[in-house]
Amino acid sequence: MDNNPHYSKLTPISFLERSTYVYPDKPAVKYKDKSYTYKEFSDRVNKLAGALKAQGIKKGDKVGFLVPNIPEMLEGHFAPLKIGGILVAINTRLSGREISYILNHSESKVLVFDSEFGDIIEKIKPELTNIDCFVQIIDTEPENKNIDSIEYEKFLETSPDGDHFVDLDSEEDHVTINYTSGTTGLPKGVQYSSRGAYISALGNVMESSMSSTTNYLWTLPMFHCNGWTYPWAVTAAGGTHICLRQVRADEIFRLISEEEVTNMCCAPTVLTAMYTSKHAAGQDLGKVTVMTAGAPPAPIVIRSIEEMGAKIIHGYGLTETYGPITVCAPQPSWESMETADLAKIKARQGVPYLIAGDSLRVVDENMNDVIRDGKHMGEVVMQGNMVMSGYLNDKEATDIAFKGGWFHSGDLAVWHSDGYIELQDRAKDIIISGGENISTQEVEKVLMENDGVAEVSVIGVPDDKWGEVPKAFVTTRDGVTLTEEELIEFAKERIARFKAPKYVEFGDLPKTSTGKIQKYILRDREWAGKEKRIQGSNI
Amino acid sequence: MDNNPHYSKLTPISFLERSTYVYPDKPAVKYKDKSYTYKEFSDRVNKLAGALKAQGIKKGDKVGFLVPNIPEMLEGHFAPLKIGGILVAINTRLSGREISYILNHSESKVLVFDSEFGDIIEKIKPELTNIDCFVQIIDTEPENKNIDSIEYEKFLETSPDGDHFVDLDSEEDHVTINYTSGTTGLPKGVQYSSRGAYISALGNVMESSMSSTTNYLWTLPMFHCNGWTYPWAVTAAGGTHICLRQVRADEIFRLISEEEVTNMCCAPTVLTAMYTSKHAAGQDLGKVTVMTAGAPPAPIVIRSIEEMGAKIIHGYGLTETYGPITVCAPQPSWESMETADLAKIKARQGVPYLIAGDSLRVVDENMNDVIRDGKHMGEVVMQGNMVMSGYLNDKEATDIAFKGGWFHSGDLAVWHSDGYIELQDRAKDIIISGGENISTQEVEKVLMENDGVAEVSVIGVPDDKWGEVPKAFVTTRDGVTLTEEELIEFAKERIARFKAPKYVEFGDLPKTSTGKIQKYILRDREWAGKEKRIQGSNI
Repeated sequence: MDNNPHYSKLTPISFLERSTYVYPDKPAVKYKDKSYTYKEFSDRVNKLAGALKAQGIKKGDKVGFLVPNIPEMLEGHFAPLKIGGILVAINTRLSGREISYILNHSESKVLVFDSEFGDIIEKIKPELTNIDCFVQIIDTEPENKNIDSIEYEKFLETSPDGDHFVDLDSEEDHVTINYTSGTTGLPKGVQYSSRGAYISALGNVMESSMSSTTNYLWTLPMFHCNGWTYPWAVTAAGGTHICLRQVRADEIFRLISEEEVTNMCCAPTVLTAMYTSKHAAGQDLGKVTVMTAGAPPAPIVIRSIEEMGAKIIHGYGLTETYGPITVCAPQPSWESMETADLAKIKARQGVPYLIAGDSLRVVDENMNDVIRDGKHMGEVVMQGNMVMSGYLNDKEATDIAFKGGWFHSGDLAVWHSDGYIELQDRAKDIIISGGENISTQEVEKVLMENDGVAEVSVIGVPDDKWGEVPKAFVTTRDGVTLTEEELIEFAKERIARFKAPKYVEFGDLPKTSTGKIQKYILRDREWAGKEKRIQGSNI
Repeated sequence: MDNNPHYSKLTPISFLERSTYVYPDKPAVKYKDKSYTYKEFSDRVNKLAGALKAQGIKKGDKVGFLVPNIPEMLEGHFAPLKIGGILVAINTRLSGREISYILNHSESKVLVFDSEFGDIIEKIKPELTNIDCFVQIIDTEPENKNIDSIEYEKFLETSPDGDHFVDLDSEEDHVTINYTSGTTGLPKGVQYSSRGAYISALGNVMESSMSSTTNYLWTLPMFHCNGWTYPWAVTAAGGTHICLRQVRADEIFRLISEEEVTNMCCAPTVLTAMYTSKHAAGQDLGKVTVMTAGAPPAPIVIRSIEEMGAKIIHGYGLTETYGPITVCAPQPSWESMETADLAKIKARQGVPYLIAGDSLRVVDENMNDVIRDGKHMGEVVMQGNMVMSGYLNDKEATDIAFKGGWFHSGDLAVWHSDGYIELQDRAKDIIISGGENISTQEVEKVLMENDGVAEVSVIGVPDDKWGEVPKAFVTTRDGVTLTEEELIEFAKERIARFKAPKYVEFGDLPKTSTGKIQKYILRDREWAGKEKRIQGSNI
């Protein structure tokens, strides 16, 4: 139905065009002392598009970005797309080996990088044989002169005049590739389509109730699922992007206050860092709506941030679902609930996005729906417009992921009678102790209720008698001292004794760059030398 | 890309499914003493779908509805769609001859009608040879027993058990046909696609900022552009539909108060009826967002309703654009404007919807953009997902409408330097007096500023010297007496003398059922016996 006057392709570039038309003089992007209006932002995107085109980037070509949450990373979400290219936004905390793998696997032809990562790029440069052009952003670090690169602002100036728009062939064309951080195996390139990105972004405009008065703080990395599509969603709404290079509680509080932030997204760990920060006292988050996802937030995290005034929207999704695909939509009947009960019910992952319809199920090993009783566990599977097109150049992994016509999340959940799902564990994170299943999340939620606990991660460790038993790794709040015995007793008073941790270890927790706790690192340590790592899961 | 796990067809039926899943016990529809939860509403829709299917309605078959804004008309927006059928919602104020034409032209096989229109249906029944089944709703009037029909509730009971969903072949399939009220010629059947209906409804969710806390009052007829897609939009948001059989100011105020109405849509005439009503005093519209379109509202209408507390969103569109496709999006710089100036700037028709992107232009006769100076007039043309698929069985009219690859609205507008359009006239409504163009709307807006004027319509009437001169038809406010001389003088003090009306006539204005003033009736009267009706327009 293409080229009909009653059909236009669904593409996020239309959001930038429309907001530039409607709000040319409104701030689109703010960072430090910089502020670009929509007109200026759009001009910069067009210049980057023109420069990439002049550099030889054609439809379907990949452009790598190794850039933190600064304006250039936003520009990267529009410029390749504008000429039919594909953005590969790379996690800035990856090792050189991983970065090299991603750039080679995606066959990226241009790499835009922030000079903070100059040393890494310098080391892996000999391996990056596909890259024709290195573009270096100078922001906080001096230029790395050992890399034959062109400075970003100079690169923009290589753009010819005129508008550089190149139409997609189809709204199903890919516009970005996001490599999963994958705790095991090689990273896989998750492909996003123009249609999927457009629809998901609209979903976020609606779920976060964004509008032209939105001031969005960039606490979520844009390299993570394209910032859950918010680079497009905030632009669609005509809001203002407030960039943030480093996630630090004091800086977050400062910007919330000075820039009148209305919206932000982040993993629960960022929220924990906020409310346990010494800067938390007296902070007013009354105008802020926070979408949190990426890991299940403990009820106390939700409660603590809401007590500071913020409104929490809790979602759940994966890189393969353009970020969150569920939202814990509030019900009229919840209004009369006690705060503590409410935080618990809000800690559930919820229901599909408005635009995701009936695209989500919890199924047993035969792809039958599990009973909606809040007890039977199954795997969360998804389909529809918010599901990736597949993994780049990996038919086998794609086929496995889409077995039975649904995308398999690998996440275990129960389905409550009201239709809300609640995550229990990654399939491999479940503990089977003496034949009994233990949800590590259930144990974690209970330990988080202890006032002295800031963060916690529970894994199964080897036990001669039970096969596995739960062990808790705990970070305490500043100035608090807790003992192993105290915490074990605390748990036993609240959940079945066999679920209580048998051991507690105190210290910092290993985390991915996106704030997910890396249980596999803890597990590696505890199971070192053992043949079998964990019991099989129940799917 | 169909049947892929990463593709789902865009269809409004998914909105009902999702809201039924998420909000089963929340009120979906309220009318008089009835209240249906989403579960109940969805069950009724499924029963109607099943009954239609049992009656022989197959994919692509048309189902006529001659029903006011009561729950059954909402059910009609989902049930045919659910089985791939096509809704033909008919304007309840049309004559028997027009209704007969529409039902025959669309080849509707089933007619659902409210017994209020039993007499009309009885008369035209012999002509309705395609209709196999008449379904009669008994609400305010007794059953018409002269028509061989089945009562609506009994018809629902003929549905077999089970879910009756039938998938569309493509998201481009048609789901409704809306006949234009057309001031001249035969009505044309404007075809809406599933994709267009879905996207337009999302557009309205965003432009009206609707959510699950929305209580939507049905002041806009659902038979008019499918109620601007709000049957789907309100359902998508999980809001509550408040039905309203007859548009009366006292009833509107009562429901706004009792049902805590948050949103409504209507033509400006309904707003005029509200603020000039004797019930207006003391009414608080502080929680209400009103989208108004269908005719350009005079600044005083916007100002008066906003003074009662409501927020006005002003849009513009046609039946061929799923209702409004533009919105007068507020700008940050407007916040500091005086009320009177603000009302003027808000009376402009604005910019494309968030989802309509660059789908709107103002062009000269060669399809070139007119200069954006607020002075050069051109025709408004549109394209994209919010434009109809074409007129049913009328290739010639469709080709004319889409000449040059854009839909021709027939509306004249200027394009302001900020990108906002402002309607001047229907092409045929412009007055050319002594070679000078006069926008009848400009004259109308000025006369509306007079405190004694409730409504006004200006047309060109024959004049031996000037060809045409403006004449104003005026309805005064209750208890106010105005003279022709006073009003002419009032206009001359405010606009060029040649634009001031030469004649003023007082009385009620002829209107379509959707509240549009029927200038052609005034024109017919004034030009009776004259060969040439109006000068050609400038496109």
